[in-house]
Amino acid sequence: MSDSKKKTALVLIADGTEEMEAVITIDVLVRAGLDVTVASIKPDTSIQPVKCSRGVKIVPDTLLSSLPLPAITDNDLSPELFSVLVVPGGGPGAQAMVASPLVHVWVQAHYKKALLAAVCAGPTVLKAANVARGAKVTSHPSVRAELDGYFAYQDNNVGKSIVVQDTDHGLITSRGPGSTFEFALAIVEQLQGAKTVDEIRGPMMFPH
Amino acid sequence: MSDSKKKTALVLIADGTEEMEAVITIDVLVRAGLDVTVASIKPDTSIQPVKCSRGVKIVPDTLLSSLPLPAITDNDLSPELFSVLVVPGGGPGAQAMVASPLVHVWVQAHYKKALLAAVCAGPTVLKAANVARGAKVTSHPSVRAELDGYFAYQDNNVGKSIVVQDTDHGLITSRGPGSTFEFALAIVEQLQGAKTVDEIRGPMMFPH
Repeated sequence: MSDSKKKTALVLIADGTEEMEAVITIDVLVRAGLDVTVASIKPDTSIQPVKCSRGVKIVPDTLLSSLPLPAITDNDLSPELFSVLVVPGGGPGAQAMVASPLVHVWVQAHYKKALLAAVCAGPTVLKAANVARGAKVTSHPSVRAELDGYFAYQDNNVGKSIVVQDTDHGLITSRGPGSTFEFALAIVEQLQGAKTVDEIRGPMMFPH
Repeated sequence: MSDSKKKTALVLIADGTEEMEAVITIDVLVRAGLDVTVASIKPDTSIQPVKCSRGVKIVPDTLLSSLPLPAITDNDLSPELFSVLVVPGGGPGAQAMVASPLVHVWVQAHYKKALLAAVCAGPTVLKAANVARGAKVTSHPSVRAELDGYFAYQDNNVGKSIVVQDTDHGLITSRGPGSTFEFALAIVEQLQGAKTVDEIRGPMMFPH
């Protein structure tokens, strides 16, 4: 995707997605100037609300099944690719994505062609899609046992940051709702630069 | 509302509501065991999605206009009252609430009978409803000029916390999306106690 084009994000949601993880990421990326598409992975025939983990009902922009599939190619970027594909957590939401061959194709198409970003239980979806073996990742500790071995799991629990970036694999991962602001800002920094992070951080009124 | 009953929250949303402020508060209160009702203040005749400030579309549980109005009484608690009435920010969302006489009635009914909690531009709605004059509040700095004079505005910008609690007026206020976790946890502490705050804080994976 050329730098002159507006950067884009595809955020996947499903019944049981953690609504804070989805909404914080969407909102922060929009504040940073990205064009964000929220796609339901449900096998609906029309756009229907998704019921998130704590009952918030979100209307997606589109169905994942109605987006044109990106080509998986070695030499060339498909115009259907987004600058970043975001996989939020929430156990049942991530499990639905783990079980979705369509989600796997989208993850595979973006791997090393664009950024993959997953938070909480989201990294289990990357493993299910069979990408990024050996990459440095973190996750919610509740799914660590599923990821250890496949990934190079990082105990990045010391100090301020609990976001793990593996630039060789084009991956950003993080731990849960409480780290999602930092997760989203890490995506912004990679796609829009540190200056944009500084510009949008102030008005959000962080305590620290 | 008796302590033996399950605690309840009413979260108001409108077109232009800041979706992170609404969703973080809803989600954290649900994690804390509250029964949360999300009400659209729009003059719709049926339940319709609300389009939040950065484009997230949320389906409310109900219309504010279809809830039974709480009685405003000096001696007695109306069963229609919620344990906490939450007013999120987002400039256009808060402006719609400022302009809504129905919202004013709901705010007035809850004042000093239950908890009022407002974040970001939300405190402008408390002023518009003509409650809590002289109370200690904070807000997003962008609306400070509207609040100074009416409220005892707090420059609580030093140290970790940017949540202001005025227990005489039954008010909790805060500054923006980046302080909404602390805002929501302050509501939880007042309604469910510090032990519940400790229980739900861990699994959310805060960096600090």
